[in-house]
Amino acid sequence: MFLPKKILEEKLLAFLKEDLGLGDVTTNTIVAPGVKVEAAVVAKEAGVAAGMEEALILLESLNLKAKAKISDGEEFRRGSVLLEIAGDARTILSTERVLLNVLSRMSGIATQTRKLVEKLRDANFRTVVASTRKTAPGLAYFDKKAVKIGGGDTHRLHLDSMVLIKDNHIAVIGSVAEAVKKARETVSFSQKIEVEVSSVEEAVEAAEAGADIIMLDNFSPAQAKKAIKALEKRKLRKKVLVEASGGINEDNILKYASAGVDIVSIGALTHSSRSLDMSLEVTDAAKIFSAQKRT
Amino acid sequence: MFLPKKILEEKLLAFLKEDLGLGDVTTNTIVAPGVKVEAAVVAKEAGVAAGMEEALILLESLNLKAKAKISDGEEFRRGSVLLEIAGDARTILSTERVLLNVLSRMSGIATQTRKLVEKLRDANFRTVVASTRKTAPGLAYFDKKAVKIGGGDTHRLHLDSMVLIKDNHIAVIGSVAEAVKKARETVSFSQKIEVEVSSVEEAVEAAEAGADIIMLDNFSPAQAKKAIKALEKRKLRKKVLVEASGGINEDNILKYASAGVDIVSIGALTHSSRSLDMSLEVTDAAKIFSAQKRT
Amino acid sequence: MFLPKKILEEKLLAFLKEDLGLGDVTTNTIVAPGVKVEAAVVAKEAGVAAGMEEALILLESLNLKAKAKISDGEEFRRGSVLLEIAGDARTILSTERVLLNVLSRMSGIATQTRKLVEKLRDANFRTVVASTRKTAPGLAYFDKKAVKIGGGDTHRLHLDSMVLIKDNHIAVIGSVAEAVKKARETVSFSQKIEVEVSSVEEAVEAAEAGADIIMLDNFSPAQAKKAIKALEKRKLRKKVLVEASGGINEDNILKYASAGVDIVSIGALTHSSRSLDMSLEVTDAAKIFSAQKRT
Amino acid sequence: MFLPKKILEEKLLAFLKEDLGLGDVTTNTIVAPGVKVEAAVVAKEAGVAAGMEEALILLESLNLKAKAKISDGEEFRRGSVLLEIAGDARTILSTERVLLNVLSRMSGIATQTRKLVEKLRDANFRTVVASTRKTAPGLAYFDKKAVKIGGGDTHRLHLDSMVLIKDNHIAVIGSVAEAVKKARETVSFSQKIEVEVSSVEEAVEAAEAGADIIMLDNFSPAQAKKAIKALEKRKLRKKVLVEASGGINEDNILKYASAGVDIVSIGALTHSSRSLDMSLEVTDAAKIFSAQKRT
Amino acid sequence: MFLPKKILEEKLLAFLKEDLGLGDVTTNTIVAPGVKVEAAVVAKEAGVAAGMEEALILLESLNLKAKAKISDGEEFRRGSVLLEIAGDARTILSTERVLLNVLSRMSGIATQTRKLVEKLRDANFRTVVASTRKTAPGLAYFDKKAVKIGGGDTHRLHLDSMVLIKDNHIAVIGSVAEAVKKARETVSFSQKIEVEVSSVEEAVEAAEAGADIIMLDNFSPAQAKKAIKALEKRKLRKKVLVEASGGINEDNILKYASAGVDIVSIGALTHSSRSLDMSLEVTDAAKIFSAQKRT
Amino acid sequence: MFLPKKILEEKLLAFLKEDLGLGDVTTNTIVAPGVKVEAAVVAKEAGVAAGMEEALILLESLNLKAKAKISDGEEFRRGSVLLEIAGDARTILSTERVLLNVLSRMSGIATQTRKLVEKLRDANFRTVVASTRKTAPGLAYFDKKAVKIGGGDTHRLHLDSMVLIKDNHIAVIGSVAEAVKKARETVSFSQKIEVEVSSVEEAVEAAEAGADIIMLDNFSPAQAKKAIKALEKRKLRKKVLVEASGGINEDNILKYASAGVDIVSIGALTHSSRSLDMSLEVTDAAKIFSAQKRT
Repeated sequence: MFLPKKILEEKLLAFLKEDLGLGDVTTNTIVAPGVKVEAAVVAKEAGVAAGMEEALILLESLNLKAKAKISDGEEFRRGSVLLEIAGDARTILSTERVLLNVLSRMSGIATQTRKLVEKLRDANFRTVVASTRKTAPGLAYFDKKAVKIGGGDTHRLHLDSMVLIKDNHIAVIGSVAEAVKKARETVSFSQKIEVEVSSVEEAVEAAEAGADIIMLDNFSPAQAKKAIKALEKRKLRKKVLVEASGGINEDNILKYASAGVDIVSIGALTHSSRSLDMSLEVTDAAKIFSAQKRT
Repeated sequence: MFLPKKILEEKLLAFLKEDLGLGDVTTNTIVAPGVKVEAAVVAKEAGVAAGMEEALILLESLNLKAKAKISDGEEFRRGSVLLEIAGDARTILSTERVLLNVLSRMSGIATQTRKLVEKLRDANFRTVVASTRKTAPGLAYFDKKAVKIGGGDTHRLHLDSMVLIKDNHIAVIGSVAEAVKKARETVSFSQKIEVEVSSVEEAVEAAEAGADIIMLDNFSPAQAKKAIKALEKRKLRKKVLVEASGGINEDNILKYASAGVDIVSIGALTHSSRSLDMSLEVTDAAKIFSAQKRT
Repeated sequence: MFLPKKILEEKLLAFLKEDLGLGDVTTNTIVAPGVKVEAAVVAKEAGVAAGMEEALILLESLNLKAKAKISDGEEFRRGSVLLEIAGDARTILSTERVLLNVLSRMSGIATQTRKLVEKLRDANFRTVVASTRKTAPGLAYFDKKAVKIGGGDTHRLHLDSMVLIKDNHIAVIGSVAEAVKKARETVSFSQKIEVEVSSVEEAVEAAEAGADIIMLDNFSPAQAKKAIKALEKRKLRKKVLVEASGGINEDNILKYASAGVDIVSIGALTHSSRSLDMSLEVTDAAKIFSAQKRT
Repeated sequence: MFLPKKILEEKLLAFLKEDLGLGDVTTNTIVAPGVKVEAAVVAKEAGVAAGMEEALILLESLNLKAKAKISDGEEFRRGSVLLEIAGDARTILSTERVLLNVLSRMSGIATQTRKLVEKLRDANFRTVVASTRKTAPGLAYFDKKAVKIGGGDTHRLHLDSMVLIKDNHIAVIGSVAEAVKKARETVSFSQKIEVEVSSVEEAVEAAEAGADIIMLDNFSPAQAKKAIKALEKRKLRKKVLVEASGGINEDNILKYASAGVDIVSIGALTHSSRSLDMSLEVTDAAKIFSAQKRT
Repeated sequence: MFLPKKILEEKLLAFLKEDLGLGDVTTNTIVAPGVKVEAAVVAKEAGVAAGMEEALILLESLNLKAKAKISDGEEFRRGSVLLEIAGDARTILSTERVLLNVLSRMSGIATQTRKLVEKLRDANFRTVVASTRKTAPGLAYFDKKAVKIGGGDTHRLHLDSMVLIKDNHIAVIGSVAEAVKKARETVSFSQKIEVEVSSVEEAVEAAEAGADIIMLDNFSPAQAKKAIKALEKRKLRKKVLVEASGGINEDNILKYASAGVDIVSIGALTHSSRSLDMSLEVTDAAKIFSAQKRT
Repeated sequence: MFLPKKILEEKLLAFLKEDLGLGDVTTNTIVAPGVKVEAAVVAKEAGVAAGMEEALILLESLNLKAKAKISDGEEFRRGSVLLEIAGDARTILSTERVLLNVLSRMSGIATQTRKLVEKLRDANFRTVVASTRKTAPGLAYFDKKAVKIGGGDTHRLHLDSMVLIKDNHIAVIGSVAEAVKKARETVSFSQKIEVEVSSVEEAVEAAEAGADIIMLDNFSPAQAKKAIKALEKRKLRKKVLVEASGGINEDNILKYASAGVDIVSIGALTHSSRSLDMSLEVTDAAKIFSAQKRT
């Protein structure tokens, strides 16, 4: 998911533009034009950093100097300085909130993802933790990138990324086998085909029809295990990846992993993420205060 | 926060565009063009509806028929049908995820806001529950509207809405009194002036300087009470609104209310909201199945 | 109304893009690529500078060097150099018109505003001169900023800035009191409430209902005085700001001020502004001429 | 200058979007959703209608019914109803200001243009009254269309419309003749070439070099007459159009016409236009009032 | 690649907007407002229809009635009517060129694709004909959709669709095996991995490393055959898809197919496509002529 | 057609944005962040360079260093290095395709235009070779600029550039003479009037009515000659430019020239252009390989 700075910049400036309206009436009033300031973004709780690349691009696009004290994917403690910023005081204070909103949302998502990934690794599972398309509206890039930084999998980036045949599609076309067959005939060779199934039988049907990935929709761990067994029995297990989806959380994730699925996907990673607490602190206020007075 | 449909439509279609990429490869493959379908959005858990207006506008802009079974602000139970939809099958299936993302995020925010508001009302407090600018990036309109639907207050919509002098501003200009004075001189008569204070003394200073609203930043309930008392003693209490902010949650909200503040503001309402579980179900799949076969 | 350069830049480049179409066919033809030039913006009549910040941002975004010889809000005489520019000749000549259009419109508005403000100050009135939403379509930021630079008040920046209940609203809801009551109940604590009234009685009714600001719509100075008196009599005068609006101009502004209103608002400041005459002059044409010949 | 509705709509909605911010907080508060209203745009002074097409497109794009009572270019009196509107009350009240801003600016420009054109026609001159590129920034389409409706000429629409060699260009390339020669060689056959000249000699030089149009820059009527004579003497008069520009106004326009120029161009038509006074009046307030009460 | 109408509409209107500039000065002049017209798009040469869906959406978005006489993917003869249009004359004449540009480019691409696909089918090959990312800049959606309509494969839609490791990537990372390994570790399970190889050895290396698809870059048919053999020998053939790319055209396509590759990809399909000749004819000119006269 | 860099940049970045989707998944995976690389664009066949200015602007806007080894309009041989690039490896590899798509399309168009122009010059004709509005949708700027670089004429840039009365317009208004008359009355003095005619008689009629340019639509060379003669006979030849259009190609272009027309216009130059083959080669792969290993 590499985007050149100039392209990412545009997405970030759109957030800023929304927040500014016709302009920051406070900073304008309190801070003289041309005053320079130094500031730092400080973590108020521990976590995994994400959004650092975005933060740097936003700040640099505004002609501010920014120095990352940590890289995306690294862990930080409460009190850590994540970012040092220097430049025009009005610009920094007007950007503070949007900057923190991006950093704290992305870091929150990465932190929760990392927690689940480590739970699996600690128990010696290689199961993939994947996000879904249940992101905040319009924030797919940011939410999915944060999941990846946390060690998770982006899953589909948008609706043109892969075929994913869901219950509504199957209802409309009549059967799993028919749906996979039709997709196979018409879809680009460059794309995989995944099918959402609601029973062990459908899982087998999908694999036999040539699906690349099978999504067990709202299966209990026990049902998931049964599906895996059924696939193994028919020598179909190696031909497909198996994803469990629906109701998976911190408490039951190990059970799904031990059922033998390859991937667990968790909507809450992005639709109900908890932002981390961070703040921006002006570190040389005294100096600016004097500068202001001279103005 | 009334926006004509045409203006809201544009924001909603931008979400859809992001999700579509160059197009939905699954629906395209599985569903024949021209097939009509009926569907319903069903709640998988109870809550307060928000985003219904947005849902209708999105669907109608796509030339789909949509009928709300509930209005924004009303409560629904698990299993309730929130919305009935009819129209082009490909369009409905391609829009499903974005539609649900908007509805479930906004309803989640409204539900949590309502819970806090009712907690206060049940204890006979009239304290206002307000959101902050800690929204998901770019989603101020949607997040703040959901708070309002839940019974909360939007607070500043963007940086041009009101003067809000924060710690960094005060540091730069030297004192609360100086900041308020400068704001009073230069800001439009149409805007209020709020000051964030970090001590009882500053609270009094702000009120004396003529601030309209005083934000007690990270005060404990006891400190808040002290500040209120100090204002009362100096006959300043009626001249200002008092807002408590920082660390307020379900557990301590009543303590802040009983300390006598007018407003409690809570960033988590929007930065760490939990989406409600909803799904879109095609209700006439059998009929479509036959229609498809004839095509 | 502080906007970071990057955000303002976008608005300014949109003006330029409109003027360019698919490109300047004259400059392209006459001036060789890569030629550097120096130029100056010269005032053809006296006035108050506004738009200097915008001019600098536009020129710098185009990679031109620009040096302001005067700051926004300062006065200049006929013949004064306002701005010195250096850089790519094609770019400067292609931008000339848009640059001058911004500067001369904004300076024209600031000059007229200053004139009215000084008339009031010379007569020892502190009355505020405010603009309205009657700007050129799409130019609220520029028109209102120019008013502010001239010493005036921006009034509402857009429809989300403050509640302003007008005649049509009152007609629909039945009475001034009812309208204010409803607004008070539903509007954010961060926003003021203003009511447009058409009689002395309504002015009193609005103040009693708790309006923050009362707009006397098309009152004569004598009627305005009467309204002020009525408010004073009921001890409501200090609770509200009073704005006179409608038909106010250079000739009658002192009469309104002496009637005791706090604010006079004048649509003509922005909807019928007179642009100041300015021109861009290439100051080293001889040098470029030789450079061109060598090319 | 014909633009399909859908394209014009986008420009108009951009004005509305600016004015709305995150939404109209007044209408939202005072008017219940779903209430229908009838309204009329009424002229408060006489003039020539312009912007009617734009008004209709804006209103229809918002799903309002609109009926023009007058066409672009027709004259109206004080008190005339220009436009009748019906539809959603919230939408009409939120759009009122932008609608009036477009109509009153365009009508103001058309009215002033018509006045000058009629002055010429009454004195039996066929001289063309042209606008310049001195429009309000970003409003070239609207300002120039209004000039045309008033009976004037749009002149260049943007920088790709025609070659117009100005003083700065000539300074850089050395001479009028050289500039025209270079333009002739490189410019598309589909475009005309105009040259701004500062003396009678240059006017002759330009015509001899093959310019299509000659702009007499800041010539007095007497100088203009001299230039015309010089062209006639050399049998060049019929080969070119002659435009006078700079300082032309209501008072001296007939003198320029009688000097024999083909075109007079006047920047003030668009850069210092006076908007006409108009207002929007809800015509069935009583009915809505009852409807509101029932809600 | 299904896009809802509203989304496609925006792309199409952007083309129209570019072509219109500030408006069609011819139609405006010649055709009275409000005149209705009927027109038809007629093929001037035989081919395969593509762009019909886009044409309908464009026309309907402009409030014109449009009736397709043929569907995307069907063949037409010289003289066939492809589309019947009715509605506002000015709008139809202003849209004519953009409409034809879309239809004739897309149909040209589909026609050439179909020709190659049929050549393969006639010779009993099932080889896939694929496009590349060598489209006209900004036209990926339209160019690739036309290829698909012609019976070809879209290949990657954009850079986030699939991993495709090319020569420059391999040079940078050291070896094919290393590149595939790294991709396998970091890329989403939802995406395939393709590798461009420049020798038979690299082809084997890629397959052994676990690539899903192998692109034989600029292999002769003989070399391609050798690569296939090598894969078969090592029992790797069934694990991968094999794509030949570089210099493939109508003359040698059968040789590549008989070498046994699964896919041939051909940049010229989109980067050097030949548009089909079509025209728009007003079919009721006489009627309009009379209507005009009455106006 | 001069556009300042900042304006052109936006068009170019839009192409890139389309191609990137949510980001380049390959480069991201294979190339470490921060690695610098040098690369060159190499011609795989001979031609005329066009798009070099655009290439430099695109690369510089992405913060890459770029050095042109050839200027727009110059000829290059197979194997020539056109452009040297240095900077962030990820950015260069992600931009490669769009960069080449722009350069190879524009150079292809310029090369073919040059070929036709030289054919005419070699036979001592001064006939102008012009493009039409039959460009790839949305690419008018790029396609027409390439024609100009190749020595051709852009013709109308968009629909507001000049009046061009075509068959459909004439049908609607009744006659060539009537159409020209109406245009003359209503169109700006700054614009030329061209008429498409379908017979010798119409050609004469158009010239007599005062058209500036006459387009002979689908005339054979013999018919064109006849039209020229007819104009000469009536002493109208010098008053108009004569353009031949329809079916003109490399084989018959000299015949049209010798018929005496001033301009030949050829849609195929832009609607069926052949892109030139070019590639981007990383020139210091070994160095980067080591750098990567150290990372």
